[in-house]
Amino acid sequence: MSELKGACIVGQSGGPTSVINASVLGAMQTALKSDCITRVYGAAHGIRGVLDDVLYDINQEDPKELDLLRYTPSSALGSCRYKLADPDVDDTDYKRILEIFKKYDVRYFFYNGGNDSMDTCNKISKFMMKSGYECRVMGIPKTIDNDLFGTDHCPGYASAAKYIATSCMELYHDARVYDTGMVTVLEIMGRHAGWLAASAALATHMGQGPDLIYLPEIAFDMDKFLADVDRIYKSTGKCIVAVSEGIHDKDGKFISEYGSSTAKQKDSFGHAQLGGLASTLANIVQDKLGVTKVRGIEFSLLQRCAAHCASKNDIDESYASGKAAVEAAVSGKTDFMAGFKCTRDGGKYTCEIELLPLDKVANTEKKVPLEWINKDGNGLTEEFINYALPLVNGETDAPKEFGLPRFAKLKKIVAKA
Amino acid sequence: MSELKGACIVGQSGGPTSVINASVLGAMQTALKSDCITRVYGAAHGIRGVLDDVLYDINQEDPKELDLLRYTPSSALGSCRYKLADPDVDDTDYKRILEIFKKYDVRYFFYNGGNDSMDTCNKISKFMMKSGYECRVMGIPKTIDNDLFGTDHCPGYASAAKYIATSCMELYHDARVYDTGMVTVLEIMGRHAGWLAASAALATHMGQGPDLIYLPEIAFDMDKFLADVDRIYKSTGKCIVAVSEGIHDKDGKFISEYGSSTAKQKDSFGHAQLGGLASTLANIVQDKLGVTKVRGIEFSLLQRCAAHCASKNDIDESYASGKAAVEAAVSGKTDFMAGFKCTRDGGKYTCEIELLPLDKVANTEKKVPLEWINKDGNGLTEEFINYALPLVNGETDAPKEFGLPRFAKLKKIVAKA
Repeated sequence: MSELKGACIVGQSGGPTSVINASVLGAMQTALKSDCITRVYGAAHGIRGVLDDVLYDINQEDPKELDLLRYTPSSALGSCRYKLADPDVDDTDYKRILEIFKKYDVRYFFYNGGNDSMDTCNKISKFMMKSGYECRVMGIPKTIDNDLFGTDHCPGYASAAKYIATSCMELYHDARVYDTGMVTVLEIMGRHAGWLAASAALATHMGQGPDLIYLPEIAFDMDKFLADVDRIYKSTGKCIVAVSEGIHDKDGKFISEYGSSTAKQKDSFGHAQLGGLASTLANIVQDKLGVTKVRGIEFSLLQRCAAHCASKNDIDESYASGKAAVEAAVSGKTDFMAGFKCTRDGGKYTCEIELLPLDKVANTEKKVPLEWINKDGNGLTEEFINYALPLVNGETDAPKEFGLPRFAKLKKIVAKA
Repeated sequence: MSELKGACIVGQSGGPTSVINASVLGAMQTALKSDCITRVYGAAHGIRGVLDDVLYDINQEDPKELDLLRYTPSSALGSCRYKLADPDVDDTDYKRILEIFKKYDVRYFFYNGGNDSMDTCNKISKFMMKSGYECRVMGIPKTIDNDLFGTDHCPGYASAAKYIATSCMELYHDARVYDTGMVTVLEIMGRHAGWLAASAALATHMGQGPDLIYLPEIAFDMDKFLADVDRIYKSTGKCIVAVSEGIHDKDGKFISEYGSSTAKQKDSFGHAQLGGLASTLANIVQDKLGVTKVRGIEFSLLQRCAAHCASKNDIDESYASGKAAVEAAVSGKTDFMAGFKCTRDGGKYTCEIELLPLDKVANTEKKVPLEWINKDGNGLTEEFINYALPLVNGETDAPKEFGLPRFAKLKKIVAKA
C-alpha cells in the first residue's frame, strides 16, 4: 500500500485502567518517530475532543514526562462515554469528525478503548471511506473487564487481576486475625463478564483466597449461596466470598437491588450503575444465618487505577499494543485492533500481537467460558488459573518521589491547526 | 542487673498492620539467638493464648518461613481484643498467666500492640512483681492509628499512610477521566485520632490529592463542609474529600450515624463500630448541593493489610523495635515500650529506638496536634507533611511467586511444657 503522510490523533475512551496510558505512550512514541506521521495529537476526552476541536499537541510535550505515562494510571488525555449515532440515521458527528480531520490533516486515528470504542472506530472508518477521505483507523484494546472478543486478553485486565488477587490474599490473612467467626463479602467490578471476580481465584489457588466466587455468567441462587456460606462458616468459622457486581438471579434482577429501594442510575450507554452489593449480601448473611460479624468490602475504583500494583507483563503488553497499532497503520493497514495471541504450553507463556478486524471485535462481549466455572457455580477451574496466572506476572518498576508515585505531568497544550 | 535465663513469649494484640509481623520477627529472631532465652513461644491470639495454654513452639519453625514474616501482613500468631480486668478487682486472669509462665518457665514477655496492649503489659508486669516472680515485660508498639504516646510514630502507621496517600493519588487521576463533574468522598480509618486521614495530605502535597480533609480532632460542621465542597466543585468541577471514620459534630454525634437508622455495634472495649460514612456524606452532598455524580469509597481493611504497598522504612523500623525490646530485656530492662525518637533536621530523617516507660504510654492517646490542622479545619499544614513524608519512604522488596505475594506459612506447632 502507498505511503500515507499526515498527522495522527490518539484518543482514549471508556473507563480507565492502570495501564491505558502505557498503550497511548506506545502509540505516541512510535508515531513521534515515524517519518509518515507529521504531527501527533491527543484527543481531549476521546472522541469528544475531536468533536469539540480540543486536541493536545503531543510534539510539544517533554519526552521525559511522556515516558512516565508508562506508569501513570487513568486516562491521561481524558476519556468519554459518548456513543456515536448510527451514521445512516444521523451523520452530524461524522461530518464534524471529517471536518476536524481535514483541518489538522489527520490521516491516522488510534482509539484506545473497549467494546464501545471499537464500535466507534469501526463507524468512523466506514464513514471516512464512504467520504473518500483516506484515513487509517486502528483500535488499541483496553478494559479491566477483559471482555473484548478475539484477543487472548485485554490490556488492563492483568493489572486489575493482580491487584484483586493480591488484595484478596492480604484480606484472607486479615480475616484470620481474631479467633471469632466472620463472613467477608468482596464486591468486584464486572457487569456482564466475571473475569475480574474470577481473578480472586488466583488468591484461592495460592491457598489464601475466597472460599466462594460467584460470576454473572451463572444465575445467582440466594438459597444455594446461603447454604454454601453456612457450610463453610460452620466448618471453619470464616468464609470469604467474592462476587461480581453484576450477579443477578434467574429472572435477571441484580442481587445489588435486593437490599435497596434506591432507584439505580443508568449511564449514557444504558448500563445500570451498580454498587452496594457487598453490604447487601453481608446483611443478608447476618440476617439469615445469624453470623454475628460480617463485613462487606467494595474494591471500588481502586481496582482499575492501582498502578502501584500493576503487572509488568500488562505494562509491557499494553505498550506493545499501542506501538503495533501505529506500525501496522503506517505499513498500510486499517480497521484492525491490535490484540494478543498467546500460548501457555507446558507452563511457558508467550504473547504476540495479532491484528483483529474491527468489525469482528466491535460490540461482541467475551464472557468467562462456562466450562471454566466449577460445577457448583461457586469457583473457577484449573483452566482459568492456567489462563490468568501468567498474566499477573512481574512487578512494576514505577519511579517514586519521597516514596510516592511520580506520575506524568503533561503540558496539554491545545493544538492550533 | 543479673542474667535471667528462661523462655519467652511473644504475643500480638489489637488490630493488625502490614508490618506487625516484622516486629514479631525482630523479637523472635533476636530471642532465638539469645543465650539467655531458652525457648521462644508465640501466644495464639495474644493474651488469650496464654490464658488458654495455646503457645506455638517457634524453635520448631523453618527459619526461611519465619524470614517471610517481614513481608506478611496481619497478625501471624493471631490477635485478640481481650481486656484484662483491674487486678485489684479480679485477679483470676493474672493468676492463670502466672501459672502458665511458671509452667513454661517464661521469664520474658513481649507484647506487640497498641494502647490497650501496653496497658495489658503494664498490669501483667506489676502483678508478676507483686507475686515475686521475676519476669521482664516489654511492649512493642504497633498501630496504624499512630496514637501511642511518647513515640515519634508507631510501627504500622507509615505503611498504612503510604497505601492511603498512594491510593489517593491514583484516585485523583481516576476522578479526572471524564469531563463531567464528580464529588468523591474517601472514608479512612481513625476513631479518635486523625493520623490516617491526615496522610491523605501527602497526596495533596504531591499535587494529586484530596481538596478537603476532615479529622476527628475538630468538630465537624455539616454546613461548613457543604460550603467547602460547593466552592471547590463550582470552581473545578471536581472535589475529593477525605474523612476520618470518627468525625463527629460538636455534640459528639458521629457523622456516620447521620444517614442511617441502623443500630451500631460496639466492640468489647466499648468502641463504636463505624462505617458507611463515605456513602452517607456522598448522599448528603448529592441531596444538598445537587451534584449529579457522587461516589463514596471506603478504604476499609485494605489500609491495614496492604503489605504490597508497605513502606521500607516502616518494615525496617518495626523489625528494629521488636529486636530492641528483646535486647533491652535480656540486658536487664523491664516495663518499657521500644518506641522511636526521630529527627528531621534540614530534611534529613533519622530514627532511633527510645525505651519509654510502659506506665507513661499505657492508655494515653496521642492525637494530631491542633496546630498541624489548617485554620479552616479542612486540611493539614506543612508541619504535618514534614513529619509524615519521611515515614512513607522506601519500597518493600517482598518476594513474589507467580507475581503474587509469597507470605509466611508457619507450622504453628502447639508447645508442650
